[in-house]
Amino acid sequence: MNATEIFKNIGDTLEARKEASPSSSYVASLLHKGEDAILKKVAEEAAEVLMASKDKDRLHLVREVADLWFHSMVLLAHHGLRAEDVVMELKRREGISGIDEKASRTQG
Amino acid sequence: MNATEIFKNIGDTLEARKEASPSSSYVASLLHKGEDAILKKVAEEAAEVLMASKDKDRLHLVREVADLWFHSMVLLAHHGLRAEDVVMELKRREGISGIDEKASRTQG
Amino acid sequence: MNATEIFKNIGDTLEARKEASPSSSYVASLLHKGEDAILKKVAEEAAEVLMASKDKDRLHLVREVADLWFHSMVLLAHHGLRAEDVVMELKRREGISGIDEKASRTQG
Amino acid sequence: MNATEIFKNIGDTLEARKEASPSSSYVASLLHKGEDAILKKVAEEAAEVLMASKDKDRLHLVREVADLWFHSMVLLAHHGLRAEDVVMELKRREGISGIDEKASRTQG
Repeated sequence: MNATEIFKNIGDTLEARKEASPSSSYVASLLHKGEDAILKKVAEEAAEVLMASKDKDRLHLVREVADLWFHSMVLLAHHGLRAEDVVMELKRREGISGIDEKASRTQG
Repeated sequence: MNATEIFKNIGDTLEARKEASPSSSYVASLLHKGEDAILKKVAEEAAEVLMASKDKDRLHLVREVADLWFHSMVLLAHHGLRAEDVVMELKRREGISGIDEKASRTQG
Repeated sequence: MNATEIFKNIGDTLEARKEASPSSSYVASLLHKGEDAILKKVAEEAAEVLMASKDKDRLHLVREVADLWFHSMVLLAHHGLRAEDVVMELKRREGISGIDEKASRTQG
Repeated sequence: MNATEIFKNIGDTLEARKEASPSSSYVASLLHKGEDAILKKVAEEAAEVLMASKDKDRLHLVREVADLWFHSMVLLAHHGLRAEDVVMELKRREGISGIDEKASRTQG
């Protein structure tokens, strides 16, 4: 369960799908439909995360967060970006603020 | 930029925040407010991802996806789950289907 | 263009659709699928409102807000409620606060 | 409980708020902040509709749908549009299709 490696594989696959025939796979089809279709999926998956959480269904919640993150990566791929860019942003914040110490916001 | 390590650090920090005083940090406060407050943030960050994408602002998009993923992790922490559970689900799918080959859906 | 009458007609139609065969119409099918399917549509239509607004496409925006309101009414019908309940709530607020005078919030 | 009249009053008030000082009211402030702030509120209210529905809290649901519709009207006002445009679109559809008969989609 090495996140670094999995993100690399998914990113490489998504880049390959951008060149593939729309009929060859779900993601190739979604990338071909373009930005608005991808954004609708991101919004839909966010809604499903909310519903799974309210249902207190933890297994379903993990699946829906995975769907949300995966479709975020499809959106990133549409824009020529990758999960690694997001991970680097998360790391940058951790370095600055220990994630969320209020002190870092108010004391500068 | 080791995603595995960053997710471990964030998960450990979030677990510590669940025990911390609500006034000690933004995340401690959000976890204290509870599920609906966290879900509102997830929905809000998803909306900001949509807006950044439509603005064609790639740097802003990376930041908003980071916000969305981070608040997803706060939600997971609320339910006693971690990013690693999501990564494992992403890995499981990769193993089954090469992420999204239609063949795996129709041929079983 | 009498809103009162249109909401009455839509509400009456939605109530009839709850009894109709799922195959008879789009709304009968959606009501038959149940709450989560309706909520997914509400979330999807909200996302489309955001996208139409960002596109500065006013005609599309009107259509998407109509879709959002219509699917809100389907959700209300699922719960045995009607647009008239929402209109009454909007009227109640108008009476209390002239919609949004800050004074009414802070001075009680 | 005359919807036509209430929408007229809300629309007139929203138009007046566009000229008012941002500090004079909640809506004047929100209109002054601009499109993205309004869209965030629309997304947030849609999320609250989902949560109220999942909570099976009908009174709360009515309030959240009222919030969603009201913030939709703020967005319409930002674009120089009104609830009446949405009502007219709902009426237009009713005329064409009896709202949702599948026949009208497939037989043209």
